[in-house]
Amino acid sequence: MKHRIERLTQWLKDEKKDAAFITSKENIFYLTNFYTDPHERLVGLILFPNESPILIVPGMETSQVKDAGWSDEIIGYADHESPWELLSRSIEQRNISLIENVAIETDVLTVSRMNDLLAVFPSAAITAVEHQLNQMRVVKDEIEIAIMKRAAQMADYGVEVGKNALKEGITEMEVLAKIEYELKKKGIREMSFSTMVLFGEKSGAPHGNPGNRKLNDGDFVLFDLGVVLDGYTSDITRTFAYGSISDEKKELYNTVLKAQLASLEISKPGTRIGDLDQSARNVITEAGYGDRFPHRIGHGLGINVHEFPSMSHLNDGTLQAGMVYTIEPGIYDPVLGGVRIEDDVLITKEGHITLTKTSKELTIIN
Amino acid sequence: MKHRIERLTQWLKDEKKDAAFITSKENIFYLTNFYTDPHERLVGLILFPNESPILIVPGMETSQVKDAGWSDEIIGYADHESPWELLSRSIEQRNISLIENVAIETDVLTVSRMNDLLAVFPSAAITAVEHQLNQMRVVKDEIEIAIMKRAAQMADYGVEVGKNALKEGITEMEVLAKIEYELKKKGIREMSFSTMVLFGEKSGAPHGNPGNRKLNDGDFVLFDLGVVLDGYTSDITRTFAYGSISDEKKELYNTVLKAQLASLEISKPGTRIGDLDQSARNVITEAGYGDRFPHRIGHGLGINVHEFPSMSHLNDGTLQAGMVYTIEPGIYDPVLGGVRIEDDVLITKEGHITLTKTSKELTIIN
Repeated sequence: MKHRIERLTQWLKDEKKDAAFITSKENIFYLTNFYTDPHERLVGLILFPNESPILIVPGMETSQVKDAGWSDEIIGYADHESPWELLSRSIEQRNISLIENVAIETDVLTVSRMNDLLAVFPSAAITAVEHQLNQMRVVKDEIEIAIMKRAAQMADYGVEVGKNALKEGITEMEVLAKIEYELKKKGIREMSFSTMVLFGEKSGAPHGNPGNRKLNDGDFVLFDLGVVLDGYTSDITRTFAYGSISDEKKELYNTVLKAQLASLEISKPGTRIGDLDQSARNVITEAGYGDRFPHRIGHGLGINVHEFPSMSHLNDGTLQAGMVYTIEPGIYDPVLGGVRIEDDVLITKEGHITLTKTSKELTIIN
Repeated sequence: MKHRIERLTQWLKDEKKDAAFITSKENIFYLTNFYTDPHERLVGLILFPNESPILIVPGMETSQVKDAGWSDEIIGYADHESPWELLSRSIEQRNISLIENVAIETDVLTVSRMNDLLAVFPSAAITAVEHQLNQMRVVKDEIEIAIMKRAAQMADYGVEVGKNALKEGITEMEVLAKIEYELKKKGIREMSFSTMVLFGEKSGAPHGNPGNRKLNDGDFVLFDLGVVLDGYTSDITRTFAYGSISDEKKELYNTVLKAQLASLEISKPGTRIGDLDQSARNVITEAGYGDRFPHRIGHGLGINVHEFPSMSHLNDGTLQAGMVYTIEPGIYDPVLGGVRIEDDVLITKEGHITLTKTSKELTIIN
């Protein structure tokens, strides 16, 4: 990960910043290959334009940091010690001159930690590092893409397990349990978000919760799930019909599919990102469902399951090769239920490929 | 939850604060009974000393807010709208006079959101609301305790499932998958943290990761797990011996058990919180393992799996009836493995009860 730290260090030089202070587990993983979930404890990476970096971690994790390949300074602190005091001492020993400008993750660092940081660097002005890290993370390299392909395969597998578990009278939670059990047996430790299995009218809420609803003939079955694999996420949604399907529901399904394909079709380098949402939205609006698609078309995907960029119709950014994001239009009806179809999309030099492969043709499970 | 909002509103009056702005999902749940995980989207509750409160939520969640019993103003925003602009407009319509002081969650609110908030209230000084919310949340009421008892029962059940799954050659991940599968079938949607199943030398790292390590005769088996149930968490650790156990390991186990019981024994109203850690640490130090107990004795437990108070030896606070926290001493050896024993403890008027009930006597599984 040395080249990533070097790139961020170069940015500090170019932008005449005196330090960057990174605390999100995702950016620390991206920059150091050390993955940890410290809960409320502090993990911090501090970079300087002309000094080697420092990694601050709970003392009991120092050996894992070394295992991850970190060879620069580590400040390991016990629960009763203040990491900020230890940082102050380390800075003093280095004779680092006045720090007047620190770039932080403004969307991550809390007010409390900013105040602690300002006690260490009392003369510092605070600026944002997100834009630079977003620009770095948004284009995935070959290693990242290889991992994300495997993560997407696992998501496909989760949908397959769920689909095969469907039978009259089974509950949403029973199907959900089966999916996660089979994924864990394949070595998946963490889902990328709470798995969603929704039947019938319950699929009509974009953010519904799985429960004891039983599966009946004529229900939509909506799966939305993803895994975390080697630090990277996947995210798939598929909707099936169980037993039989009315013409009304069939039209709803095929409208969502048409919208999803419209958005996929323009997924290639150079496309304005906002047009992805707009092209799908146009299909749904023309079919008369415009008010039932209440969310953006998708989101960037990588270490975070929701990351930069946000694929709303307002986004004037441009697609470039190496970007990975979701395309997930949906139509939600409180009575008929909802349909959402979501793929993970990788922009290639030539156009795109979908990392998720499960068929999207309307499938009736019997 | 009206009485909780009233209590916080009274605090605003007493402290002469003009508003409180709450964004953590846990405190919003505590104050409104509305539970949501908004990911990167804003959910915010704003309280005033002399005005009814406002709840800001993603538009697609407004019906869930009403279902949760919220009857005051809701600002629902679409993905392309700025919740801050909508908040500004609502504030203008109310003719609220100058806001000079806003209490926020300094450990939660990000620098970026603080800046957005200051754009709405440009004259506001920022102060902390945590202390007051901690004081409210630290004493659980009867409804909360009833839920936490059930959450702890589910944690006990998870350990039982794991224990029954043990057999020569099974992997950590296979046991973990079985535990979570059985809990999900009982309706558990979410574990309170990543379940830990560690065998042999792997239990010797306080924050190890389950993997494909196979179970062998003579291994310690460490389970650390908990569930989220109706918004509240549980957290249990038990360590078993598999097949046989050496005298060296037996001594290690019994030292941890003695330390845990020493800390439990003084768990009653009026005890200095720091003494919980110290009493267990004394036992471990006297037995010669002082340098192998690298973490605090425990943490407050409730809506968050780690919440106020932090049970370190430095904590000069006092136990009071209604508090719930963990007692979890451990000794970690990179070769022998580690032992940790953790209960969820409720302070009662008379002393304490443990919410987790699984036996702590050294148990050898065959």
